[in-house]
Amino acid sequence: MTSNSRIQCEALLSRVTTAEQAATFITPGSTVGMSGFTGSGYPKAVPLALAARIEAEHSAGRPFRIKLWTGASTGPELDGALAKADGIAFRLPYNSDPVAREKINRGEMDYLDMHLSQVAPVVWQGFLGPLDTAVIEVSGIREDGSLVPSSSVGNNKTWLDRAERVILEVNRWQNPALEGMHDIYYGTALPPHRVPIPLVRPDDRIGTPYLHCDPAKIVAIVETEAPDRNLPFAAPDAAATAIAGHVLEFLRHEAAKGRLPASLLPLQSGVGNIANAVLAGLIDSPFEDMTAYTEVIQDGMLDLLASGKLRMASATAFSLSPEAAARLNANMADFRHTMILRPQEMSNHPELIRRLGCIAMNGLIEADIYGNVNSTQVMGSRIQNGIGGSGDFARNAYLSIFMTPSTAKGGKISAIVPQASHVDHIGQDVQVIVTEHGLADLRGLSPKQRAEMIIGTCAHPDYRPMLADYYRRARGGSYGLHAPSLPGEALSWHQRFMETGTMLC
Amino acid sequence: MTSNSRIQCEALLSRVTTAEQAATFITPGSTVGMSGFTGSGYPKAVPLALAARIEAEHSAGRPFRIKLWTGASTGPELDGALAKADGIAFRLPYNSDPVAREKINRGEMDYLDMHLSQVAPVVWQGFLGPLDTAVIEVSGIREDGSLVPSSSVGNNKTWLDRAERVILEVNRWQNPALEGMHDIYYGTALPPHRVPIPLVRPDDRIGTPYLHCDPAKIVAIVETEAPDRNLPFAAPDAAATAIAGHVLEFLRHEAAKGRLPASLLPLQSGVGNIANAVLAGLIDSPFEDMTAYTEVIQDGMLDLLASGKLRMASATAFSLSPEAAARLNANMADFRHTMILRPQEMSNHPELIRRLGCIAMNGLIEADIYGNVNSTQVMGSRIQNGIGGSGDFARNAYLSIFMTPSTAKGGKISAIVPQASHVDHIGQDVQVIVTEHGLADLRGLSPKQRAEMIIGTCAHPDYRPMLADYYRRARGGSYGLHAPSLPGEALSWHQRFMETGTMLC
Repeated sequence: MTSNSRIQCEALLSRVTTAEQAATFITPGSTVGMSGFTGSGYPKAVPLALAARIEAEHSAGRPFRIKLWTGASTGPELDGALAKADGIAFRLPYNSDPVAREKINRGEMDYLDMHLSQVAPVVWQGFLGPLDTAVIEVSGIREDGSLVPSSSVGNNKTWLDRAERVILEVNRWQNPALEGMHDIYYGTALPPHRVPIPLVRPDDRIGTPYLHCDPAKIVAIVETEAPDRNLPFAAPDAAATAIAGHVLEFLRHEAAKGRLPASLLPLQSGVGNIANAVLAGLIDSPFEDMTAYTEVIQDGMLDLLASGKLRMASATAFSLSPEAAARLNANMADFRHTMILRPQEMSNHPELIRRLGCIAMNGLIEADIYGNVNSTQVMGSRIQNGIGGSGDFARNAYLSIFMTPSTAKGGKISAIVPQASHVDHIGQDVQVIVTEHGLADLRGLSPKQRAEMIIGTCAHPDYRPMLADYYRRARGGSYGLHAPSLPGEALSWHQRFMETGTMLC
Repeated sequence: MTSNSRIQCEALLSRVTTAEQAATFITPGSTVGMSGFTGSGYPKAVPLALAARIEAEHSAGRPFRIKLWTGASTGPELDGALAKADGIAFRLPYNSDPVAREKINRGEMDYLDMHLSQVAPVVWQGFLGPLDTAVIEVSGIREDGSLVPSSSVGNNKTWLDRAERVILEVNRWQNPALEGMHDIYYGTALPPHRVPIPLVRPDDRIGTPYLHCDPAKIVAIVETEAPDRNLPFAAPDAAATAIAGHVLEFLRHEAAKGRLPASLLPLQSGVGNIANAVLAGLIDSPFEDMTAYTEVIQDGMLDLLASGKLRMASATAFSLSPEAAARLNANMADFRHTMILRPQEMSNHPELIRRLGCIAMNGLIEADIYGNVNSTQVMGSRIQNGIGGSGDFARNAYLSIFMTPSTAKGGKISAIVPQASHVDHIGQDVQVIVTEHGLADLRGLSPKQRAEMIIGTCAHPDYRPMLADYYRRARGGSYGLHAPSLPGEALSWHQRFMETGTMLC
């Protein structure tokens, strides 16, 4: 008995229930795999009901925390509510929720920051333990019980396959035209049974549009009508525009040299105002018939699709502003054949990124003079979000570009430092670094050649003399001169910031 | 006119000449791609002749240096002689020669330390510039001009394809039974034309046993009869034996849990006494019908093949002691069908390592309490050898194990430090760390959980209280508590070693 025409499978109608009732299937200490990737396609009702239940239990003096696995980041109704209720003991593989972030950085929540491509295979390997419950948002249930995925795919296939019991949220807010957009590959296996993944173009379809789930495992279905978390569009500022200009000039140069085709190679792009500026710049570029093989489809990607310059985009999720989400929903008929959403195991698979030869463009927190990049831990210890897919893409890309303003906190933090306080991307995986001051093409350079180029090209003028001074003295007092360093001083800029509030002397 | 029956191609006999004459084809400032991988299959005559020529030019006041590319390390007749002659301006992708190492660490030679799987594709991308001359050791030239590879494959296919001119060394010291052992895959391409690599088992053959080279490019052929650089066998000491014991216990445990098959998964193993101890231990283990998919076949791998427990080994080169090389040569008929040598682009390909699910076992210089590993730069600045294939394997392996004695330099250096002075392998790629004191299974652990396990399990007792003290204070004074650190102190152990000769207080 349901008012929701999204549930077409008669046999499952009896499982329809309330979020509160569904949440009772989740027990203290259990492991829960939820849907959700960059604020898209996460469950919106059951996590809130679970948070309320956890708070009630805590009020009664009973402990209640879970281990929470997702695709990547989710929304305030999930990570925010559960973290606020102190309901998460352990979290993987990615978080960008501010409440959860604070918990992690106060040492109150354990967080395992993982390569996004590795989550599904690692869960299949089994050493993370069993997955007790999956809570998955879908946009519909078909007559035969197959599931129409929502606005993200993430690890949903794996959660549905591995979980002992499954709770579904059917969200009628999601556009029905999503049906057919997904490509769920069911050919994965554990070694020694793995075979080549038969994808050779970003627009290849190698799976089915639907998720499958043993109906006997479905213990509850909850109907919702709730929007994804859509973050406001971050408009490019002067620095982002300058960075985009440098990147576009570089891509034109590489194409002129014959090292990139006229349609470029499949684009991977992070989110945020710099990414949007680069994608906007590509609208007015000479490149045609482009493709994207990336994690998320953000505002700039949608504009590039609308312009006709981008032929198609493959991703695992949407990450749109409210305006772009409204635009997509209003024009889904035009857009739907230009987009494919896949499991993150496929969108981020090293085999596929290397084969396709992606152009990877990602942000960073800091880079050191040798081009080692910190993407995750401010001052080496405070997690910002997580490595996400940046490692999957940076190491396997045809071109690996990292972009950042040269300073943060109004100039008090330099994005270029003597030594990175934490390393997510080793120099070998960082080919190009771009700030508003310039682009350093580091390909083929030795460490000292890299240092001179990064200091001279990327660093902010306020910090350039300090960096040059450190590097000069390191050349005098280093243990070895392959990559000169002064261990007693290399992290002093971070210490100074912690003590004085600025890296400037 | 030749006494060497290894040259069967009539049309090429006219190119046979002396090493001195061949070396004249190499000009100052040019880029030279030579064969050679872990001291196997490198040219032995032309580099010596080139070094003599360079020394003569230098004596005459004329500059003469080259850019040198290889597979990996070579021998004293190549890296040693050319470095001694101050003839190398730039070197990639790997070096272990002591003379060249000193030049690099005195800042007299530029060195680009690369992931070994990426050398060939990066050279095809073209931004490293043209390859002027290839100098390749082969073990024979067939009637049709095809080349029988030598005791390593490395990047030879790419050098032969890309070089403007080619010099061959035909080494009759190499066993003629090498013919047929190689598998040279000619299916690579630049994107967007890459396709799946059709290898699904370590013993699959996907190419041809021979290298091809346009005969018009062959400007000189030099006959040699000279042994590979065969390093003495490093016998396991007590620490290596203890480490091997921990690793074998762990593998048995994983198999008992059903997370590894009874034949394990394809083994990758570095070289040295710890690797040999692990491989020796596998002879007496319950595992049968094992395979190896690795970079090099070292002594321990040969013993394991001889025992019948290892069914076959795929690699790109041999790395044998003089005794093992003699044993292999004497029994080549028995061994040859159990071994395949491939281009390093294939032996180390992320696509293949991930698909096969390799068990990666590598050494390290230091690991920090969060499991970030430094494999290359002593005290953060002094290059030891290079990252080699460890990044290719560690990130894509089914199991990524790093092994090290807990101290070096008679206890004056701790292999476990508060913060790695350089990072080659980020925590995400380091699943297990083993010292003689124990094995830390870090899979699924958050940074703080990792720190407690690494300090408590792997560190030497002399350093354990110092590490525990640092970690305790970091938990009190860190910017964030995700991965507590004290930037002002994190590298002080390295500074202390540089100043006092020991990391101990």
